[in-house]
Amino acid sequence: MDKILRIDVGAAGGPKMTETSMGDYAGLGGRALTSTVIAAEVPPCCHPLGADNKLVIAPGMLSGTKAAMSGRISVGCKSPLTGGIKEANSGGQGAQVLARLGYAAIILEGAPVDDTLYKVFINKDGAKVIADNSLKMLGNYDTVDKLTAEYGDKVACITIGPAGEMKLPAATIAFTDMETRPTRHAGRGGVGAVMGSKGIKAIVLDDAGMKMREASDPEKFSAANKAWVAGLKKHPVTGEGLGAYGTNVLTNVINESGGYPTHNFKTGQFDGAADISGESLAELENTRGGEGSATHGCHRGCVIRCSGTFYDADGNYVTKQPEYETVWAHGGNCGINDLDVIARLDRMDDDFGLDTIEMGAAIGVAMEAGVAEFGDGEAAINLLAEVGKGTPMGRILGSGAAAVGKAYGVEHVPVVKGQAMPAYDPRAIQGIGVTYATTTMGADHTAGYAIATNILGVGGNVDPLKPEGQAELSRNLQIATAAIDSTGMCLFIAFAILDQPDTFQALIDLLNSFSGASLTADDVTALGQKVLTTEREFNAAAGFTKADDRLPEYMKKEPLAPHNVVFEVPDEELDQVFNW
Amino acid sequence: MDKILRIDVGAAGGPKMTETSMGDYAGLGGRALTSTVIAAEVPPCCHPLGADNKLVIAPGMLSGTKAAMSGRISVGCKSPLTGGIKEANSGGQGAQVLARLGYAAIILEGAPVDDTLYKVFINKDGAKVIADNSLKMLGNYDTVDKLTAEYGDKVACITIGPAGEMKLPAATIAFTDMETRPTRHAGRGGVGAVMGSKGIKAIVLDDAGMKMREASDPEKFSAANKAWVAGLKKHPVTGEGLGAYGTNVLTNVINESGGYPTHNFKTGQFDGAADISGESLAELENTRGGEGSATHGCHRGCVIRCSGTFYDADGNYVTKQPEYETVWAHGGNCGINDLDVIARLDRMDDDFGLDTIEMGAAIGVAMEAGVAEFGDGEAAINLLAEVGKGTPMGRILGSGAAAVGKAYGVEHVPVVKGQAMPAYDPRAIQGIGVTYATTTMGADHTAGYAIATNILGVGGNVDPLKPEGQAELSRNLQIATAAIDSTGMCLFIAFAILDQPDTFQALIDLLNSFSGASLTADDVTALGQKVLTTEREFNAAAGFTKADDRLPEYMKKEPLAPHNVVFEVPDEELDQVFNW
Repeated sequence: MDKILRIDVGAAGGPKMTETSMGDYAGLGGRALTSTVIAAEVPPCCHPLGADNKLVIAPGMLSGTKAAMSGRISVGCKSPLTGGIKEANSGGQGAQVLARLGYAAIILEGAPVDDTLYKVFINKDGAKVIADNSLKMLGNYDTVDKLTAEYGDKVACITIGPAGEMKLPAATIAFTDMETRPTRHAGRGGVGAVMGSKGIKAIVLDDAGMKMREASDPEKFSAANKAWVAGLKKHPVTGEGLGAYGTNVLTNVINESGGYPTHNFKTGQFDGAADISGESLAELENTRGGEGSATHGCHRGCVIRCSGTFYDADGNYVTKQPEYETVWAHGGNCGINDLDVIARLDRMDDDFGLDTIEMGAAIGVAMEAGVAEFGDGEAAINLLAEVGKGTPMGRILGSGAAAVGKAYGVEHVPVVKGQAMPAYDPRAIQGIGVTYATTTMGADHTAGYAIATNILGVGGNVDPLKPEGQAELSRNLQIATAAIDSTGMCLFIAFAILDQPDTFQALIDLLNSFSGASLTADDVTALGQKVLTTEREFNAAAGFTKADDRLPEYMKKEPLAPHNVVFEVPDEELDQVFNW
Repeated sequence: MDKILRIDVGAAGGPKMTETSMGDYAGLGGRALTSTVIAAEVPPCCHPLGADNKLVIAPGMLSGTKAAMSGRISVGCKSPLTGGIKEANSGGQGAQVLARLGYAAIILEGAPVDDTLYKVFINKDGAKVIADNSLKMLGNYDTVDKLTAEYGDKVACITIGPAGEMKLPAATIAFTDMETRPTRHAGRGGVGAVMGSKGIKAIVLDDAGMKMREASDPEKFSAANKAWVAGLKKHPVTGEGLGAYGTNVLTNVINESGGYPTHNFKTGQFDGAADISGESLAELENTRGGEGSATHGCHRGCVIRCSGTFYDADGNYVTKQPEYETVWAHGGNCGINDLDVIARLDRMDDDFGLDTIEMGAAIGVAMEAGVAEFGDGEAAINLLAEVGKGTPMGRILGSGAAAVGKAYGVEHVPVVKGQAMPAYDPRAIQGIGVTYATTTMGADHTAGYAIATNILGVGGNVDPLKPEGQAELSRNLQIATAAIDSTGMCLFIAFAILDQPDTFQALIDLLNSFSGASLTADDVTALGQKVLTTEREFNAAAGFTKADDRLPEYMKKEPLAPHNVVFEVPDEELDQVFNW
């Protein structure tokens, strides 16, 4: 993982590839690499779909090694949704396979000279770019079917669906999972539109003949990994909670807390929550003879295994087990309490290549505008189908929740920096509100998952209904997250390392024994801070100010039932989140 | 004109009116008043369609007097299109009549408690607010017909069409002209959406029994007005040019200069320009037995008389003589060279209550996206019809050019601060590019009309193709404009006062003899600077930075034919425009 593949899609005669060493980027991976490259090479005021934007796809520092949980891959660019810097990351097989092929990053740059669609194929012999207009406007599932028919089913695919080709601001980049299905997505901020703007439909990775990346001190590395896995298995969330019901275990928990955004963030509890909870989902999956939960990771080397598979009543595969945020977005947020409808919407999102959070939020705003009734699952399916077809309604929805609000004159639009809020109301869980408001990414729970400490009692306890301590909590979580997102580690490891100092040490030992460095906990903090500073500077140059680090005004004024709370963290504290 | 009428539309039991004195706002009018009120009373980060935004409608300082050309009225708010402060101004009868009724401003505030639609009626006996759901979703023409049937045809009406009720970001507020037709609009920035968000469909003004406003020194005022009118008649632009062919006299002039944006700002000359020029328009109007040009002002007291009336081939009234920017927006920008199509589109815009510039630009971007062919007038009519109906396509277009670009993944979107550029390409006329980039309003030619000096030789000469001297020119014009927009004077007077010191002095004499003040030319400059500073501060607090004071990147890179020039004014000079 010591080289970078650059593809200039604007070269005369078709895309031109260049392989370079890491140069100034040596030692970086994942988010640290994507954000550093974007900040260094992309003019902050450029058009996100123009020649000057770049798309950087980078496995984490430990991806491709035998370290457990190291299968996350980062995608960076200037976001078509927010206008700021973006790192969206994904599970699936891409990180491990790309890393084993020796690439620290693939960078797509330039602007296509015509509308030819290309695919990239990389194996042990190198990389090729091949024109393939037969893939045009195919869904991710059909695209992957065609690619595996051609390249075999052992490959890992990185693809965009029609949404990416249409350059919709809610378009994702799909990464195939262990079953070579396009179920894992770099979901947020429209990264798929940037890939679409480069005219690249698919990147196919075949690591046959390649080996796991070798640690500089293999014995220490093995020992550290053993401690690491033991630590993850020991913690109640990573060892049991997530495995038992998947991320959707949160539906009942968050609903109980009163922070479950319902009917476009109108209230904090959904009376249909039990119908779509992780418990109900597992029961349904088991009834239908599926694998249920607790059985399934999204990439090789996962020991948390939070995923599963969703089958319909006839036992046919529909989609992977929908994540909590997806169940919320298409469920409670739209008043829908039917898991079959939600799974269908999840499948459509995955196939079109759309962010489930943004789409659920967009449909929620459309429902508030009267385009459909809250709770009408059939209407939601029809609306999402329009996005796949690129009808005018589909274009509005695919432009995201903020665009729907603008087109329909809706005041209640739950976005920050133009990106929709996920499945936690910031009034009833104020810590996540600080993260939504201040992260460089636009509203994003994964940027500093204050739910851990506000609700789950991980990493301490902070009263979710009160502003006290939230800014400091979010600051620390955002720093830790930026570092974790650089390692290639799944963010769920945070539960264990927040609570168990020896597990955090095992992670540091993994990093050091792999690279030969001698990082301390302080160095990890410094890495996270450096990433955040780089991103903040890009955003400032792109025109972001503290006015962008705010929740929508209505959340400071309109109380959320059942606790009847408003967001109360003072602006002055929000402005201190990055002051360390 | 010593009182303010405030209407709190959110009061329990329906809108509640309060009349107050001018208080701290004493002496202000027009843009100086609207921008001061917005800056003082509206939180910069509020939602433009929410309870905290206000709509301020204010005649100019000299409106309602016998001073010639004093019939402009300013509308201020936080803009739903740009997110910044907005002053959109209009001709028509509103300014004179409202001023004679004694009101310096009407301020709509709060948020409606339900969806009842209201009209406001003001005459010598005071103001009333009346629920009238029979007006719902009527076009401006039908609305005015209903209102004149009820209140007589001597009234002045201020109304919104369906676009305003739908809260579309391109919605205008219409002001009736001397024939009580809704042909004059506060067009830019979505002010109509803010009026719609307040649930007010119409304001009807009847000044029967009211007198002209009296000057403090009537004799001096009369003498000053005589010199004023003489000065306007003496200048070739205000005395002849505008009267002969209306504003559309510019089509041939700008096309000849190579700065006529054609096919969504793709090239700088349109081969159909002659077909839609002011000369062709006058000929067509005369052929059809209309009044032609040179016959028509938009308000009482106009001596420039740049307007006319457009009739169809059967002699039926269609619309007022379309302005140059409208002819360009729906004409050359969309490749359409048919005046009947353009007039029909103008009529539809006026009826739905839409900004002709924003709609032409939006349709141009949609054409670039392949939604329709450039030059297809029928398609343009059908697209605009969708806006009136509020279909999804109509919602996209009515959200403005930037929204169309986002929904269709188009890079070439000619906007600044989210507002579409008007009829002058900033590459071939670099002075107007400085104004587009830096004005507080989003791209707006009227904020500092550098065409005067770059092309028309008014106020000196600056090479339009060169960056030199453009920042200073735009600065001076923006300052002067902010002051003129506060007086209630039509901006076209600027041609005369830029070239003729005695005419500028006549304007100062008008102001002084009316109010009893003793302003100098420096005081006028100071007023303009103060207005701009107030607006800049609001925008900064709303999150605007110098990154927002930029043209789209492509205009710095892609040369415009026939001169093959890019926009070359350095960023550093743009950042000095407000440094005086």
